[in-house]
Amino acid sequence: MGYFRDNVERMAGYTPGFQPTATDVVKLNTNENPYPPSPEVMKVLAAMGPEQLRRYPDPVGNAFRQAAAELHGVEPGNIMCCNGGDDLLSIAIRACCDTSRPLAYPVPTYSLYPVLANLEDCELIEVPFDGQYNLPAKLASTGAALTIVCNPNAPTATFIAIEELASLANVLPGVLLIDEAYVDFAERDAVELVKRFDNVVLLRSLSKGYSLAGLRFGYAIAGTNLIDGLLKVKDSYNVDALSIALATAAIKDQTYFRANVQKVKADRQTLTERLRALGLVVGDSATNFVLARVGARHVSPVPPSAGQIHGQLARRNIFVRYFNVPGLDDKLRISVGTPEQNERLLAALQEILSM
Amino acid sequence: MGYFRDNVERMAGYTPGFQPTATDVVKLNTNENPYPPSPEVMKVLAAMGPEQLRRYPDPVGNAFRQAAAELHGVEPGNIMCCNGGDDLLSIAIRACCDTSRPLAYPVPTYSLYPVLANLEDCELIEVPFDGQYNLPAKLASTGAALTIVCNPNAPTATFIAIEELASLANVLPGVLLIDEAYVDFAERDAVELVKRFDNVVLLRSLSKGYSLAGLRFGYAIAGTNLIDGLLKVKDSYNVDALSIALATAAIKDQTYFRANVQKVKADRQTLTERLRALGLVVGDSATNFVLARVGARHVSPVPPSAGQIHGQLARRNIFVRYFNVPGLDDKLRISVGTPEQNERLLAALQEILSM
Repeated sequence: MGYFRDNVERMAGYTPGFQPTATDVVKLNTNENPYPPSPEVMKVLAAMGPEQLRRYPDPVGNAFRQAAAELHGVEPGNIMCCNGGDDLLSIAIRACCDTSRPLAYPVPTYSLYPVLANLEDCELIEVPFDGQYNLPAKLASTGAALTIVCNPNAPTATFIAIEELASLANVLPGVLLIDEAYVDFAERDAVELVKRFDNVVLLRSLSKGYSLAGLRFGYAIAGTNLIDGLLKVKDSYNVDALSIALATAAIKDQTYFRANVQKVKADRQTLTERLRALGLVVGDSATNFVLARVGARHVSPVPPSAGQIHGQLARRNIFVRYFNVPGLDDKLRISVGTPEQNERLLAALQEILSM
Repeated sequence: MGYFRDNVERMAGYTPGFQPTATDVVKLNTNENPYPPSPEVMKVLAAMGPEQLRRYPDPVGNAFRQAAAELHGVEPGNIMCCNGGDDLLSIAIRACCDTSRPLAYPVPTYSLYPVLANLEDCELIEVPFDGQYNLPAKLASTGAALTIVCNPNAPTATFIAIEELASLANVLPGVLLIDEAYVDFAERDAVELVKRFDNVVLLRSLSKGYSLAGLRFGYAIAGTNLIDGLLKVKDSYNVDALSIALATAAIKDQTYFRANVQKVKADRQTLTERLRALGLVVGDSATNFVLARVGARHVSPVPPSAGQIHGQLARRNIFVRYFNVPGLDDKLRISVGTPEQNERLLAALQEILSM
């Protein structure tokens, strides 16, 4: 007998985006928000005392649930706190999927989904997007126990209309998890679907829109029938006392949040236009990153590949994300940075593309 | 098709110990350390800036791994950071157990083990302790993929000699997880077994000995063969940036840690003797709590049951833990508090037992 299950022995594990330790870098590879979190978060952090560290946290984070419920117009019982959005993905797959209950999602998408599915040894049904990343019609008839749609999608930055997701939820026999990790940068969200369908769960993250990637805080929004089941699967104390307090302060400061998001959206627009001017093919983004296709028209006679550009940028201490998989290996995923960071990227790109 | 797996639908979920929100309470029900964390922890907390919140944390917490490796005389590759010790339990069971790979442990013990096993839908082999809570010989021959021994054990507060665990590790075909959440209050630990056996993993927690229950930080110590497999199963960013920094500061301050533990041990000795003087049967404890059996000799003609005492203490805002299950339903688990808290408990107990 091996020490581990066969499916665990076989798998490679997830590789997170590279986290450089050097400080003078332009880090546009893991979709962090370039602006700091709300000053209200820092005030709450400064007020944390030893007693909050000494005692166990509230197991379900009721302070956060209350604040999130008010924000979204739902009840606290419709909210579940998570140790990052990834915690919810793991919980949902463990709650819904096993060897006889498949997981389905369109591809390309967030590369953690298959890793988590392999951990549960459940059947994977990957349905390819078309060239415009429209919702695949086949997703409605897979028979999966859990269907995940990342919307806006990573790494394509595209957005599927909420009514299309409503139609999908309406016909699916299982659960529809809409991964809204990037929805803060889109024009709409799917909260209304939670009120219309008992099989829809939304994933939210404070890593991007709230500049709190270091905190690991996400949450679910769903009907109480789903929340009550997911609560059984979550670790009994999955979020710590500091995270609950800081996350609550963050979502209560909607004024700061909206201004932050507006800045990122404006920077995104400029970055998109400038990348297009360099000859890259860049679709409109509903996220805090853009997906740029390389090789349409370049100054140099033999244009460098996306992988080569990725490497040459890294040598200049500029980090973007490159996925060496079919459909993505001619593209770069670039997080929207500060205007200064974006300028350094654009200058380096211009140099590399002209060589 | 139900939205959830059948085993999830059937299960009730884990019930954490009651967390009272009132402030004037004597809270001896969840084994928190009564003394605050190290001042070094608070210094690091005060120095945390927005940049540490904005960026993703180190996925494996190398700063902590380095500090823990130095403390235990192992390599950083022998350490895995976890979101509380419970995270490691979940990871180990997911890595090792499934419907054809059972989990075994002696009972009574930590009541989370069967909850996690039910989540994986794996066979449970519960081997009863004898009356003195010695290691059951039958544990060596269950054929389990994963065997968990909580040592010191909760809620019995008893300790199994390390050489007995070595003999067990030597004959087990699968993995032996020694849950050392309370080992800071014992006289020995099992770190040497990690160096002698490739199938031993230790669980450590900063919740008790380091007064950091609010932080959710635990870790594994094991051979790299086991750590590398467990790392594949853990969430990619399972511990946040604040927790890594604060946990690292805590284990580096061994002077404060040792003084804290010595105080709790001295308080434990006094509490044990005073409970015995009240007629309760209390074994020697290797943890920061005691297990007290009710009903041996009392002043009143019909002595109250453990459950009744638990309720009457709660009405006085004094909280201890009561498990309404066979073998434990005549006992109370009482965390060692400050001398003042222990006195309030003892005075209330004397009053209740004399009624």
